[in-house]
Amino acid sequence: MRIGVLGAGQLGRMLALAGYPLAKDFVFYDMSGSPSAGLGETIVDRDGKYLDDFLSRVDRVTYEFEHLPVEVAEELAKHKPVHPCPRALQVCQNRVAEKTLFGQLGIPTPEWKVADSADSLKAAAEELGCPVVAKSITEGYDGKGQAVLKSPDQADDAWDMIGHPQVIVEKFVNFSREVSIIAVRAEDGDVAFYPIAENTHHEGILRYSIAPAPGLQAHVQKDAERYIKALLNELNYVGVLTLELFETPEGLVANEMAPRVHNSGHWSIEGAMTSQFENHIRAVSGHPLGSVEPRGLSCMINIIGEHGDIERILELPYAHVHLYNKGERAGRKLGHVNILADSYKELVWRVRTCAQFLPGCPEFKSSLTAKG
Amino acid sequence: MRIGVLGAGQLGRMLALAGYPLAKDFVFYDMSGSPSAGLGETIVDRDGKYLDDFLSRVDRVTYEFEHLPVEVAEELAKHKPVHPCPRALQVCQNRVAEKTLFGQLGIPTPEWKVADSADSLKAAAEELGCPVVAKSITEGYDGKGQAVLKSPDQADDAWDMIGHPQVIVEKFVNFSREVSIIAVRAEDGDVAFYPIAENTHHEGILRYSIAPAPGLQAHVQKDAERYIKALLNELNYVGVLTLELFETPEGLVANEMAPRVHNSGHWSIEGAMTSQFENHIRAVSGHPLGSVEPRGLSCMINIIGEHGDIERILELPYAHVHLYNKGERAGRKLGHVNILADSYKELVWRVRTCAQFLPGCPEFKSSLTAKG
Repeated sequence: MRIGVLGAGQLGRMLALAGYPLAKDFVFYDMSGSPSAGLGETIVDRDGKYLDDFLSRVDRVTYEFEHLPVEVAEELAKHKPVHPCPRALQVCQNRVAEKTLFGQLGIPTPEWKVADSADSLKAAAEELGCPVVAKSITEGYDGKGQAVLKSPDQADDAWDMIGHPQVIVEKFVNFSREVSIIAVRAEDGDVAFYPIAENTHHEGILRYSIAPAPGLQAHVQKDAERYIKALLNELNYVGVLTLELFETPEGLVANEMAPRVHNSGHWSIEGAMTSQFENHIRAVSGHPLGSVEPRGLSCMINIIGEHGDIERILELPYAHVHLYNKGERAGRKLGHVNILADSYKELVWRVRTCAQFLPGCPEFKSSLTAKG
Repeated sequence: MRIGVLGAGQLGRMLALAGYPLAKDFVFYDMSGSPSAGLGETIVDRDGKYLDDFLSRVDRVTYEFEHLPVEVAEELAKHKPVHPCPRALQVCQNRVAEKTLFGQLGIPTPEWKVADSADSLKAAAEELGCPVVAKSITEGYDGKGQAVLKSPDQADDAWDMIGHPQVIVEKFVNFSREVSIIAVRAEDGDVAFYPIAENTHHEGILRYSIAPAPGLQAHVQKDAERYIKALLNELNYVGVLTLELFETPEGLVANEMAPRVHNSGHWSIEGAMTSQFENHIRAVSGHPLGSVEPRGLSCMINIIGEHGDIERILELPYAHVHLYNKGERAGRKLGHVNILADSYKELVWRVRTCAQFLPGCPEFKSSLTAKG
């Protein structure tokens, strides 16, 4: 079976690495002009001229990023199975559609309003009560196109900075930590849930994910499973879905979803019985799902901007290095390191040992270090 | 770094799958006319016309099979680092050279003699005492070119069957089980040893490997490590080396070595902190070695000839499927399944559950099942 992947970055690369052992072949369709998957066939096509060619070479289609034109996915879906369904893309590309769907399915969100001018942004900020977060409705990625308003007076500046015709204004959530749940749904409707991960961001980029999230109460995991399952079933979804959430004293609040394998699930390569990548390929190919049980405790550390001293990291007996074979550039995701341990105490020590070899890696702060 | 691999079968494929996350690229050089790696670039060249081209594309050279002309490896080694060294090939291609080296290094072997005629085979059988095993001196693979003589009278038939100008005649070893040790040596001389695996063959083909080998006494592991370390250091070896041994009540007896990753080490993909494939790539690339610690108990089941009911195996939460994307053919290695467990009792049950979906898979017999 040949799987066509829209996008040709590191997520596609890791999907392929997980898919070859299941006898899948891969064709990547790159619209960026700078594919980096480094595996399989790659069709570079900035003008949509070779979509037919792409289609003719594949049996099923999936994607590794959600900012592709929905029309393209819909057109492809007329000819070959496209998983996840184009509707999932549509929802993710519009924060209003996304929050509306969350609301319909009983998934808690921050209070939110829509604004289409600096004045209405100011009004929304007043009504919701500051601080609020204003975000462009479309094309959000890694914290771009967002602004925090500490008072309604900042509406003009925020509006100019975001520079979009419409923004969603969300009441600031006083969260104790950021978490995510990753789930996978098979063609037959079977669903499996990875344990919730705790995520630490720095300058808008994910830096650390710990899974299972330390100190998580069982009912919180159950809540997250109920929320993501509602999304999966509503969308008749096939493949891996990620839901980013805030944990608050009052429970979970949904931030956004990603219709794909996700950076906060990279720990699963060595940290779970079946990685998110293999499970996505299994689902997309019509196979049964693999076990999502964790194998011990994991922390994923992103390698951002510079590679650092990889040789020293390779010496650490508990570290697994995953490089994307990309050139160094500020803010760019170049790879990640998965750290394994049997206790959270040991995990903290190991993560800190590893992080010292990664220049620019922010100090490891998590619910674990806060407690200690 | 681009790694050139001589051979393009499933071992090369799994080397590449382990090497991409370390930012390696792969070029395969295939002399068989039927490459199956399915990854990286492949140069198919039955006449040696494109060796220069191959060399120009790679930084380092390794190989996935030992039946390639030593002259080719020696020629390549004049231009690029070739790991393991061509001398390792030379030793492995000649059973007399191999047994002689074992003897020089104090590695126990069966008593053996060389015969170059049916008469001298008969004389050797009489002198050693039957049963003896006669093997062609070169090109042995998966039990081909071998004969067991229960009495010296069978010398004529055995000689004709083997059809080689020279045979090695070995006294039959009354072993309790077949085992193997896999070790890896880095460029700087650092050495790491995987736990000994217990191997079960059927019709000359490996069917099951259990690691760590159940009930193994610590001094037996130490003996095996001493033997393989002597070989690694003598050969100034870089990469993974496999030593197949018989376990007997009197200790280990060496059968043969393979200068490469080995089927009896496939369990290490999920069953060890670092797989044999990753460690081979690390060594060949000049990186430090990864931890060889086992992660629980593993059994590898080979998929031979037919794929069987892979969908059912994919449903088993403790099974990891590795397919080589090859067509079915009697006796052909098509893939393997790694089974994980926390106890040997559970491992036996799981292996039997899995094996029932593999037609032609012989009943699981091992030191575990023999004990009842």
